[in-house]
This record gives sequence, structure tokens and C-alpha cells, in this order.
Amino acid sequence: MSQCLDCHELDLDAILEQVRPLLGKGAVADYIPALAKVSGNKLGMAICDIHGNIYSAGDANEAFSIQSISKVLNLTLAFNIYGEALWEKVGREPSGQAFNSLIQLELEKGIPRNPFINAGAIKVCDLLTTRLSAPKQRLKELLWDLCGTKSISSNRIVAKSEREFSDRNAAMAHLMKSFNNFENDVQQVLKVYFHACAVEMSCIELAKAFSFLANQGKSAITQSQVVSSRQSKQLNALLATCGLYDQAGDFAYRVGLPGKSGVGGGIVAIVPGECSVCVWSPELNHFGNSLAGSEALSIFTSELGRSIF
Amino acid sequence: MSQCLDCHELDLDAILEQVRPLLGKGAVADYIPALAKVSGNKLGMAICDIHGNIYSAGDANEAFSIQSISKVLNLTLAFNIYGEALWEKVGREPSGQAFNSLIQLELEKGIPRNPFINAGAIKVCDLLTTRLSAPKQRLKELLWDLCGTKSISSNRIVAKSEREFSDRNAAMAHLMKSFNNFENDVQQVLKVYFHACAVEMSCIELAKAFSFLANQGKSAITQSQVVSSRQSKQLNALLATCGLYDQAGDFAYRVGLPGKSGVGGGIVAIVPGECSVCVWSPELNHFGNSLAGSEALSIFTSELGRSIF
Amino acid sequence: MSQCLDCHELDLDAILEQVRPLLGKGAVADYIPALAKVSGNKLGMAICDIHGNIYSAGDANEAFSIQSISKVLNLTLAFNIYGEALWEKVGREPSGQAFNSLIQLELEKGIPRNPFINAGAIKVCDLLTTRLSAPKQRLKELLWDLCGTKSISSNRIVAKSEREFSDRNAAMAHLMKSFNNFENDVQQVLKVYFHACAVEMSCIELAKAFSFLANQGKSAITQSQVVSSRQSKQLNALLATCGLYDQAGDFAYRVGLPGKSGVGGGIVAIVPGECSVCVWSPELNHFGNSLAGSEALSIFTSELGRSIF
Amino acid sequence: MSQCLDCHELDLDAILEQVRPLLGKGAVADYIPALAKVSGNKLGMAICDIHGNIYSAGDANEAFSIQSISKVLNLTLAFNIYGEALWEKVGREPSGQAFNSLIQLELEKGIPRNPFINAGAIKVCDLLTTRLSAPKQRLKELLWDLCGTKSISSNRIVAKSEREFSDRNAAMAHLMKSFNNFENDVQQVLKVYFHACAVEMSCIELAKAFSFLANQGKSAITQSQVVSSRQSKQLNALLATCGLYDQAGDFAYRVGLPGKSGVGGGIVAIVPGECSVCVWSPELNHFGNSLAGSEALSIFTSELGRSIF
Repeated sequence: MSQCLDCHELDLDAILEQVRPLLGKGAVADYIPALAKVSGNKLGMAICDIHGNIYSAGDANEAFSIQSISKVLNLTLAFNIYGEALWEKVGREPSGQAFNSLIQLELEKGIPRNPFINAGAIKVCDLLTTRLSAPKQRLKELLWDLCGTKSISSNRIVAKSEREFSDRNAAMAHLMKSFNNFENDVQQVLKVYFHACAVEMSCIELAKAFSFLANQGKSAITQSQVVSSRQSKQLNALLATCGLYDQAGDFAYRVGLPGKSGVGGGIVAIVPGECSVCVWSPELNHFGNSLAGSEALSIFTSELGRSIF
Repeated sequence: MSQCLDCHELDLDAILEQVRPLLGKGAVADYIPALAKVSGNKLGMAICDIHGNIYSAGDANEAFSIQSISKVLNLTLAFNIYGEALWEKVGREPSGQAFNSLIQLELEKGIPRNPFINAGAIKVCDLLTTRLSAPKQRLKELLWDLCGTKSISSNRIVAKSEREFSDRNAAMAHLMKSFNNFENDVQQVLKVYFHACAVEMSCIELAKAFSFLANQGKSAITQSQVVSSRQSKQLNALLATCGLYDQAGDFAYRVGLPGKSGVGGGIVAIVPGECSVCVWSPELNHFGNSLAGSEALSIFTSELGRSIF
Repeated sequence: MSQCLDCHELDLDAILEQVRPLLGKGAVADYIPALAKVSGNKLGMAICDIHGNIYSAGDANEAFSIQSISKVLNLTLAFNIYGEALWEKVGREPSGQAFNSLIQLELEKGIPRNPFINAGAIKVCDLLTTRLSAPKQRLKELLWDLCGTKSISSNRIVAKSEREFSDRNAAMAHLMKSFNNFENDVQQVLKVYFHACAVEMSCIELAKAFSFLANQGKSAITQSQVVSSRQSKQLNALLATCGLYDQAGDFAYRVGLPGKSGVGGGIVAIVPGECSVCVWSPELNHFGNSLAGSEALSIFTSELGRSIF
Repeated sequence: MSQCLDCHELDLDAILEQVRPLLGKGAVADYIPALAKVSGNKLGMAICDIHGNIYSAGDANEAFSIQSISKVLNLTLAFNIYGEALWEKVGREPSGQAFNSLIQLELEKGIPRNPFINAGAIKVCDLLTTRLSAPKQRLKELLWDLCGTKSISSNRIVAKSEREFSDRNAAMAHLMKSFNNFENDVQQVLKVYFHACAVEMSCIELAKAFSFLANQGKSAITQSQVVSSRQSKQLNALLATCGLYDQAGDFAYRVGLPGKSGVGGGIVAIVPGECSVCVWSPELNHFGNSLAGSEALSIFTSELGRSIF
């Protein structure tokens, strides 16, 4: 397995300067007031290599709402608990549709296409709720395991705001329940879901947290073996095909790495065997992915000469 | 770039023996008589590493109908001609639907989701027809460039049989034309499309032909630089997200390689920087992918310890 | 306006005997235990002409769960309150889809196609909840106005059972809410909806209750002018195009009358200017309409020589 | 059966003056050049009562392209030939979708929802082609039977223009063929279809032609019994539920009559037992129905005090 000899040679500041002209050309998520207030001109980037070395630039130390990036963390918990049986409840195919669509969910009788569209992520929270007495606490413990810090927390105001605008997600949960693919109280599960979405982390913390996917399942920070080497590859496969909403193909084409985005403007990507990388820029394109963030990752892989392809 | 030091240690015969019990559990494609006649118990596998070394087992020398695997070859021709402008006419996102569905094509106003569903592949043939005076001849020349042999040909009986049952594909072409995304005569383009589907190649020939995608765009057999290194990665990205019909996520999860299947029972997969591999077993699962073939590839990547993730 | 001179000549018992062989060939609704217990061999029919004369046969005096027939009653209340403004919130086109589908509701941004599919009927209950302090009580008063009896009531056990299996309906309500087309608490509105579904009436009571639609908006029993003559025609138009789930066209073709069915096995139909008719047979066809009931109505219109066409 | 005593009292000129302000607010069909040239300020209306009396106003004598109104005429021919067996090949339910959509046609495996959406009308032409040696000539003979004149003809330039822009319809035909619900050569059938669409008739001629549907299947002009009394009611049922594209419910609500529209701007409607009526105004609303024409019919039924409801 080759090492990430080149990361220290990358000029992350220069990458950020190249994409800074994109600021002002996207739109900050505004479906809840708490997110709409974020300044659009934030820009940060951090890399964590498999030896735990950190490289960063811009607003890499500022915590932001990780939103859908949390879906990978909850999935990691559920995959550990359920193993392969998980896939009887959630599919692992790209949806070809918007992340919050109910159409496919109805046609496919309540089985969400994958764990990264909303319906699938809510189903994962349902499964966690069935087996864990305190799923929100368990997520915190996972982050501790991954980053070695207890300081990460969920923003209660954001979580509460999400729940006030949660009808689309509640519709999905009830639809799954009508197909006998939902086990717990809808509102209880949505609390777990929104708590995770409202977790706030910086680029550096996210790069650290996701180092296990670059390092055969073992955190490069704490050396904790979070999932098996095989499971780590499988999670990366899911990220590569389903991680960027309905723009997964474009991201594979332009960036060439497994990744996961959130409407808070963060994107995490993995160079298997080398490093994890996180960018943050709150303005989104119309797919809901960070505009400057995805461009920064495209430059990153071009300059590094790395992609999984 | 690491070399494929391990391929010669793989026991391909043993892999085929492991999957042989699956024979009889799938179904040979029967939508045209010419394909329905193929014996279900064929089983072959071949590897071509980036040095041009060939490893093979079973019926690896027997030619079969490459069917949708040809979509990658036509796409390669079109990508060379049109470059990035190609993507104004064809998308590069997974469809989340059956390969021959018209639903998304109508909703998305005649722009096919990707070049590997039927509508997209037919659109690629339309684009080739616009620019090339003899697109069928040009495909032959590409195969010559890739494999170093002029002996590969298209089966006229199969092509004719396809055209007799081509209404679904004709419907797609006319629907694209109604949205002004089709430039040539429908029947003329379908001839180009079916000619390519009816090309017959063996596992060894296919492994050779696809070695350029493992070798930064250069054929490991003829040393011809077919596409640029960057384009080679981009083609692999498309294969990884869209190459296995509506089973791309599952294939990424289980096999972990870019790949392309055909209803003739062939599957080609790429280990970037190392080798290309082809398996053949005519019986399909209900997604239209070779049942034993995809299992053989899953064992292959497990034993080799390779995947892109 | 011609009078219903012929109804007394109809042999309703003979009609019921003609359709009795169909008993056993459909299926009683079983989505809630309370309905599944109903005996499949019930069969009743009643006519109320515009002079208030009643003709009946079979189990015409036995009360059953009126289910979706109640949608017409709630719509009558809402139409009286909102007038034409109602149609900004609910459409009046046939859906071409199953009565409980969310697909069209998502594509058409939370505006239900018509007031007789579930989403539309729930939206009507939402509108009633906004304007009425006691919508359930108001429905009872309407029935009193229509039939001249206070004895009609809703079955609490059925209503409670419906609420326990209400996830599909809750999904619709939340989806409408996510599109800003829902004003009240989802559970509160569903209580109003299920209370109406669980109302129990006999064929005779239903024929009486719907006489206003045959009599230019005025009850033939109590002479109460429930809606205007114009509104009565408009309600009949809605029944003719949308009243029989996704079988409205077939019902128009075979029976030729405006009508409304319920999964309790009741069907009400209107001969404008002449009479209202109700049949009851609990076994349903796969569209959710009474099998023997719709056949009885077909014979009824053939023998009477009446249809709106 | 009551007679149309009141038609002679209607002031058709006054009705046309009421709707004339709508001219300029719709859009003339422009999908083929031959139709786009029609002047938008044409306005005509004609009534034919069951005694053959004609009442007319405005441009009632000017021939226009009947377009989809022809679907009723071809259906009448096919219904006569095939009887009830026709419905194995074409449904009779409203589609809830655009008249030229392929989505439902794919989901419902090539059986068109009804004979008035394009797919259904083309299927009717396919059935005519199977049984008739000269289906275009047979349509002319039907018009002769209905109107008593041989002077009606199809505009060759319009028919040719339609065929040049026929890809959407060809897509439907090929899709049906792929589901084994199409018997003849696609282009041959489309010729029959477009020939009928391009027939040119005046309001007076259309009112005469459709009098059989008001008169129990017998032409009020020639006394020819074109279909049985029962079939006449059944055709009216189809018109009432499916005749106005995806606006059938609205037309039933506002006008309250069975009817059929065409993108040439004509609408025919039936008052069963009394009269047939035709309006013409080329500007369409976004459903493809004549804007002023449907308003004129709404005033007509209000003033006449007639509707089927």
C-alpha cells in the first residue's frame, strides 16, 4: 500500500484561492432559518493522512453543520450492529432521483434505495433506535472513537428548527411504516435523525473522523478499528455510487473519489490507502452540493494525481 | 504505479469451479432467438495485465455476443471525437431505473441519463453517425487498435434478429428525436447500434481490448494511446457508477471495480493500474447481469485483495 | 324535469338475485381487523326517488361502514363553506392512479388531484378543521339535515382501528404540509377523516342522504336545500369523473351514472332529476369497488333505461 | 325523451360576443407550420338538434382542421367492427397525464389508457388497418353517412406536415409494438392517423356529424343508424371521462357535457336526447383545449339550463 508522500507538497491555500471566485454564485441552504444565517463566504479545507498528519487551509477550524455527512456516521453504527442483514431494510443502489423524493419509495414498496437519500438515512436511524437505548449518545461515542475528542456536539437550535420543518421526512417515515418497513415511533426516530444532522464539526475534525475509511477501517487518529477492512471498502463503494445525491456520477467523473456531501456546505472525500479530505463552502449548486467545495476537490485530485480510477 | 505481481498466482480454474454450481440458476437472454440458443453452461475467464500478459481459464477462447459491452467501445470513439461536448447530449448519472425504460427519458426531455442505458448508447451511435462516414468500420478499426487483430467481426444473423425486435429501442430514438436530441435517421442509427451489439469476442479478446482502461488509456497489447490518461479515468468513473444497469451499487459493493456487463453473459472489469478482466457465463440474474460472472469477479477481487476502494 | 315514474316497476329483488352468484368471487377489505370481520354474503339495495319514495330489497336496512362514501359528505360541507375557492387547494381531475398513491401528489407539489382520492379527502378535512370548531358534529348535523334522523353514528372501534393503520394517510398529510398545502395538526385532521369513514349507514339511509344530488340540491326527505342547484350538478360532475377510484371510466361506460364507492362495499349512484340509489355487497374487485354492487347498478340502469348519456 | 324546444331561443351570437374578449389570451397550436398559420381570431358555433335543425353563428361555415376530434370518428368505426373486444387492446380510464405521455403506456405494458390520448387513438388506427383494406376511404364513407355530403376531405399538406413531426407518435407506436400490442407497420398506421387528424370540417358539418351521439346512435341528418343506442351512450361515457385531455374533470364541472376537443381549436359536445354542438376558436389553453370555445360551451349550458348532471 503506497503512502501519502505527496500531501505535504500540496498548496491547499492555492487551491482555495482558485475556487474563491465561485463564492457568490451558489445559494446557502435556506429551508430552515438556522442554516440560512450562515455566511456564504466561508471556505476551508483539511486533509488527514493515514499517519494522522493534518494539512489545512482557510476556515478549516470553524465548526459548521455537518447535515447529511452524518448519514455516513449513523450508517457506520448500524453496519456494525446489523452487518449484511442491514441490506434487507435499505438498498444500495443509486436512486436517480432527488434525495427527498417519495416516488421511488412508493414504487419499491417502502425499501429506500440507499442509506444516503433521506428515506434511507431515516430508516438507518429507525434501526439504531430499535437496538440502542441511547442512539444519540452512541453517535457521540463514535465521534470520540474516531477523533479522540469529546468536544463535538449537536446544535440544539438547529435540530429543533429542523424538526419544525420535518414534514417531508415525516411523510417518508410514515410511508415506510405503511409498508411495514419501520419499527419505531416516527417522531422519536426523527429526533435521532435531526440530532445527527445538527452535529457541528470543523473541516479538520471531519477529516480526522473519516480517516478510518482511508485506512482500512482504523482511525488514523485514535487507531480504533471502527469497522473491518472489508466493511471500509464496502462503505467507500456506497459513497462512490450514492454519496453525492443525484450528482454521484458527475462527482465520480470530475473528482474520482468516494465522498459525501451535506447541505451545510461540507464535503468529505476519501483517497483509499492515503488520506481523507474535507472541504467547506456553504453555497450550494442546485443538486444541494457545495459549489466551491466540489470544485476544490476536483483541483485537489488533479494536482495530487490521485483518483480511485 | 504498482504492478500486477499477483495475477499469475491466482488460480482462475479454482474460481470458476467455485461458481460453477450457479449454472442452471439464472436464465439465458431470450428476447431474440439468436441469443436464446446459446448453451447456459459456458464459463470462461481471462485477465490481461498492463504488461500484456494473459491469464485465462475455462471457455476463455470461445467468442460470444458482447452486446452492451460494445457501448463502452462506441462511447470511446465518441468521446475521442466530441470530448466534453459529448455531455451536452448524454448525461453521466446513474438512472435508478431499468436499462430500457422511457420514463426518465420523457421526464428529462430526451436527454438520456448516461451512455450505458439503451437510450444513451443509441444517442452515442447517433453522434457517431453524424461525424463518421462508416461508423461500423470505425469500430472494427478501434478493435484492431486495441487487440492487434483484424479477426473480430459482428454476427449478421444476430444483428438482423435484433433489428427485428427493435421496437423498444426505436421508441427511445423517436422520443429523443421528438425532443430534438437526435440527428439522423432512426433506422440507420439502429443499424450501427445493433452491429456493435452483435460483435463477437472471447474473454481473452475482451480482456485485451479493455486493457487501455487499466493502463492510463494505452492498450497493453498494441501500445496504442486510445484515449488520454484523464479520459481513461473518466471512463472508469462512468463504468463504476453506471456500468451494471440498475445493479451498479451492488456490483461496487461486492466486486469494487469499474465494469460493464452485456446480456450475452459477459462482464468486463478494470483494476486501474493493474489489469483488465473478463468473465463469461450466459445465464443472467433478473437485472440482466451474468449470475456466475459477477460472483466470479467478487471472488477474484477478494482473492487478489484488490478493489478501487 | 321528468319524474321517476318507473322506479316502482323495477323488481329490485330480481336484480339482487341476478348478481348473487358473484358473491364469493371478490374479497372483503382486510386492511383493518374491524372491516375484515364483515360477512361477505350481505347484499342490499335501496332507491329514494325525488318525491321521497323508498324502494328496497335484501339487506337494505342493515348499517355498514360507509368509508369513502363519506368523502362526498365532507366535500359537501366544505363546498358550502369555501365555494369556488375550494379548488385552489384540491383539483378536480381524475388521477389515473391508485387512490392512495403519493406519486402524483409529489409531482403536482402537494395539490391533490381531486377530493375523492385519499389525499384530497384528507385535505377537505383539513379545510373543515380550519373553519369549524366541531367538524365531526357538523357532519352529524348534515346527515340529520339530509335524512331527518339523529340515529346515525360513527363506529368508534372502526375509527380507532383505522387510526392504528393510518400511516399511508399520515404520509400524504405530511407531504401536503411540506408543500404548504395543509393547515392543521396531522393527527387532529386524521381523526376527523377516520370519524367520517367509520360512519355506519344502511342502503336506505344512504339513498335518502344522497337524494339531494338527484333533486337539484334539495333533500327529498327533509326538503332542506343543502347546496344550490348549480353546485349539485357540479358535485355530480365530480362523481362521474372521479368517484370510483381508478375505475371511473369503466363505471361510466357500464353504469352511466355519477357514483361513489367505499371499501365497506357500498356504492351510491345518482339519476339526476329522478332518484338516488345505494347498493351494498362487501366483497370488492381489485380496484376496491363492490363487485356485485357495481354489477347490480349496471343491471339497474339497463332495466330502467336510464343513464346520464 | 324530451325535445330540444329551447335551442331556437338561444342567442348564439350573444354567446360568441361574451367570449370574444378571450381572443388573444391563448395560443394557436404551433407544433406544425400548417396549423401555426391559422388566424387566432376565428370564432364560430353551430348546433344540430335531433330533428336536424341547424343553428349557427360566427365563422360556423369555415372549415378547420378537426385534429383530435377525428379520434371519435375512428373509434366509432373500430367499435362497430370489434365491439366489446376492442377494450382488450385499449382501456377506457382517464389517464391523469398529458395526452402524449409515454410514462403510463410503459408502466401499463403497452395498453393505452383510453382511445382519446394519442397512444390510444393510434392503436385504434392500428386495429382499423388490420381489418379494413382502405381505412382512410372508410372514414370518408362514415362522414358521408353522418353528414350526407361527400365534400369533406383531408388536407394533404397538413397530413404531410404532421408526418414530418411525428416522432412522439412513432415512439408510442413502437413502444406498443414492443409490448406486442401493435399489429401493423408503424408508418402505415401513422398515415391513417394523420389523414384523419387533417380532415377539415366546419362547425356546422361537425355538429351534423356528431348528431348521432345525441340521437341514440342515429344521424339526425341522414337517419343512418351508425351505432346502437347502447353504444351511443357508451361513447358518450368515454367522452365525458376522457374527451378533454387532462382537463376532463374541469370540463365536466364547468360545462357538464360529453365532449371532444382538438388542437385545431374545435370542441364538439353532446346534449343527449337533444342536440350536438360545435364551437371553434383556434387559440388554446395550456391543456390544448380551445380557450374561448370551452367558455362558450359553459355559457351555452348555463343559458340552456342543460347538463347531463
